[in-house]
Amino acid sequence: MRSELPPIDHARRVWLLQEALGRGLGNGCDALLFTDLTDVRWLTGFGGSNGWAVLRADDLVLGTDGRYGERARAETAGSGASVVAEQQRSRLNQRLVESLRAAGRVGLDARTTPHAEWDRLSADLCLEPMDSLVKAQRQVKDAAEIARIEAAAAAADAALAEVEPLLLATADEPVTEADVRNELEYRMRLHGADDRSYATIVASGPDHAARPHHEAGDRTIVEGDTVIIDVGGLVDGYHSDMTRSWVIGEPTAQQRDLYQLVAASQQAGLDAVRDHLPASDLDRVCRDVFVDAGYGEWFIHGTGHGVGLDIHEPPFHSTTSDDVIMRDHVVTVEPGLYRGGFGGFRIEDLVVVTETGCRVLTHSPKRPL
Amino acid sequence: MRSELPPIDHARRVWLLQEALGRGLGNGCDALLFTDLTDVRWLTGFGGSNGWAVLRADDLVLGTDGRYGERARAETAGSGASVVAEQQRSRLNQRLVESLRAAGRVGLDARTTPHAEWDRLSADLCLEPMDSLVKAQRQVKDAAEIARIEAAAAAADAALAEVEPLLLATADEPVTEADVRNELEYRMRLHGADDRSYATIVASGPDHAARPHHEAGDRTIVEGDTVIIDVGGLVDGYHSDMTRSWVIGEPTAQQRDLYQLVAASQQAGLDAVRDHLPASDLDRVCRDVFVDAGYGEWFIHGTGHGVGLDIHEPPFHSTTSDDVIMRDHVVTVEPGLYRGGFGGFRIEDLVVVTETGCRVLTHSPKRPL
Repeated sequence: MRSELPPIDHARRVWLLQEALGRGLGNGCDALLFTDLTDVRWLTGFGGSNGWAVLRADDLVLGTDGRYGERARAETAGSGASVVAEQQRSRLNQRLVESLRAAGRVGLDARTTPHAEWDRLSADLCLEPMDSLVKAQRQVKDAAEIARIEAAAAAADAALAEVEPLLLATADEPVTEADVRNELEYRMRLHGADDRSYATIVASGPDHAARPHHEAGDRTIVEGDTVIIDVGGLVDGYHSDMTRSWVIGEPTAQQRDLYQLVAASQQAGLDAVRDHLPASDLDRVCRDVFVDAGYGEWFIHGTGHGVGLDIHEPPFHSTTSDDVIMRDHVVTVEPGLYRGGFGGFRIEDLVVVTETGCRVLTHSPKRPL
Repeated sequence: MRSELPPIDHARRVWLLQEALGRGLGNGCDALLFTDLTDVRWLTGFGGSNGWAVLRADDLVLGTDGRYGERARAETAGSGASVVAEQQRSRLNQRLVESLRAAGRVGLDARTTPHAEWDRLSADLCLEPMDSLVKAQRQVKDAAEIARIEAAAAAADAALAEVEPLLLATADEPVTEADVRNELEYRMRLHGADDRSYATIVASGPDHAARPHHEAGDRTIVEGDTVIIDVGGLVDGYHSDMTRSWVIGEPTAQQRDLYQLVAASQQAGLDAVRDHLPASDLDRVCRDVFVDAGYGEWFIHGTGHGVGLDIHEPPFHSTTSDDVIMRDHVVTVEPGLYRGGFGGFRIEDLVVVTETGCRVLTHSPKRPL
């Protein structure tokens, strides 16, 4: 599968940013310093766990430690970065400052840079807090990125299709939440994922399924349970994200009604998604379905978020969000209902936003109960 | 296995810190604000992905978002924390400030708190950068913590024992690095781990094994390869860490010599570990073996680190480290040699430091070639 993925054009990203710098965008900074590892990966291709990048109008430097020198050179070849690898942390910090010596103002993300590091760098550099230049660009996904997210979603779909029978046969052969999780994460890799996208959620029964972010545990899934499975794959650094819900055995009237309510809310959200939609509007569309039915209090999280190199990235669809959903954003639509003693349901699809609507990347069936 | 683990006494941690605060330790702060999630977990037991804790002499508050309210109450019961769960980020921030309203100076870790958050909080609070109070306490492991780390190490040992034959039978049945990784991570869970401790490293052949932190890929492992496997388990938030190395098929004279050199260096490190050993001394002991043999340049990382709720935590054993290895620290000893075109070897054990030496937690055999 990997070999069929189109290459990511890092050189183009570098060029576009350098061009913007040259035109005095970026608050008139002479250089941008990237310390957020996901930003570093987006810009250069380097996927290691320690590094920084310095971008100037005519130059890109990637710094990392001795463990990653070889790997960094291989991964960043397409970006044109020159790689600096230093075994000593102090020497690597020195190289960072050196690579910015003649720069005037240096843009740096204040939301991800630790305060102590900001203070230390401020002794040598004139730092300018800047946190939107790359964030906005990262939200808009190109075809190569969408191909990776789609491959990750397909791996999760395929794994879930194989594991669902295990879940539904619990009367014959007891399974725990952890059993289901283990199989899902193992099988996503067999279907082309490098890894899971995040810790898979398998939440069952009156207490666990009432927690939107329950971690799978040793609980055995039993007849009468509501079950929420939230699972995604990772392909070349890009995440997918989906959720499906079940009732084990014959549903009660309340289970049936609330499942239908979640399904209706989620469909209303899918129908609403389009270019230029305020993220708070998407949240309201889904939330109103619950509020109108008297279950507004049971929906205790936002309606979704962007997905890319981070599993949670802007736009965030919450009541108070100022974000706007735009074409080629990849976002989730994931309303849910939760209550201790009852359990819960959530249905979540991953979609690519188009001018007039969206294309759904999640293909797992949403079975009626 | 989980039910056999001794409980962690969070109330004791809270009490000890409150007692220290009451005696004016902590730079005379009236309160400590924890935003680092690992610190929050260590103190309260809460393991979710969003939260903060406020500790005062007579009070502990845990704040988190709506997804985690139920879970936070369950997980922090032993700490005596009162839980605040707010769906809106702005409201949760408000609750944080409210819970510190009457406090004078508030200690906060400047190394992990983002600069933008520090700035925002500074508008309402008198912040004092403080980063050692809990870090030092976290380094010293109690019996309940060591039991978890030991269980994690045992899961990795058991998985590796099952997967090693797969690796050594590559002539008959080709396997890729990713195949080996997938089996290791799957099997650690069958042997009691909640998860892997970190992305498992399976690095093979002249290029990949020359990268200390190579991620397993699609490369098929072949005769003549050096192979490095670096794998650990996770149990109740606690990590393990170990590395073993192999040559596939009959080793060359150079492969044999360098493997022996790494083994000698690692044994020298194990022999040196004891209470009050400067971490830089441990690094020097291992490094000298390589330098004396003319291979100093091939050892391109530090000799090890502490392990606990973080996979990498102090003490760090590097040439320039000021850290000191103390009794009941859990640390790695992991020298290695790497060179593009040759490949590499690393041998790593996890040990608990004792007064006069150490107790090794890693039991996988170090097979001679």
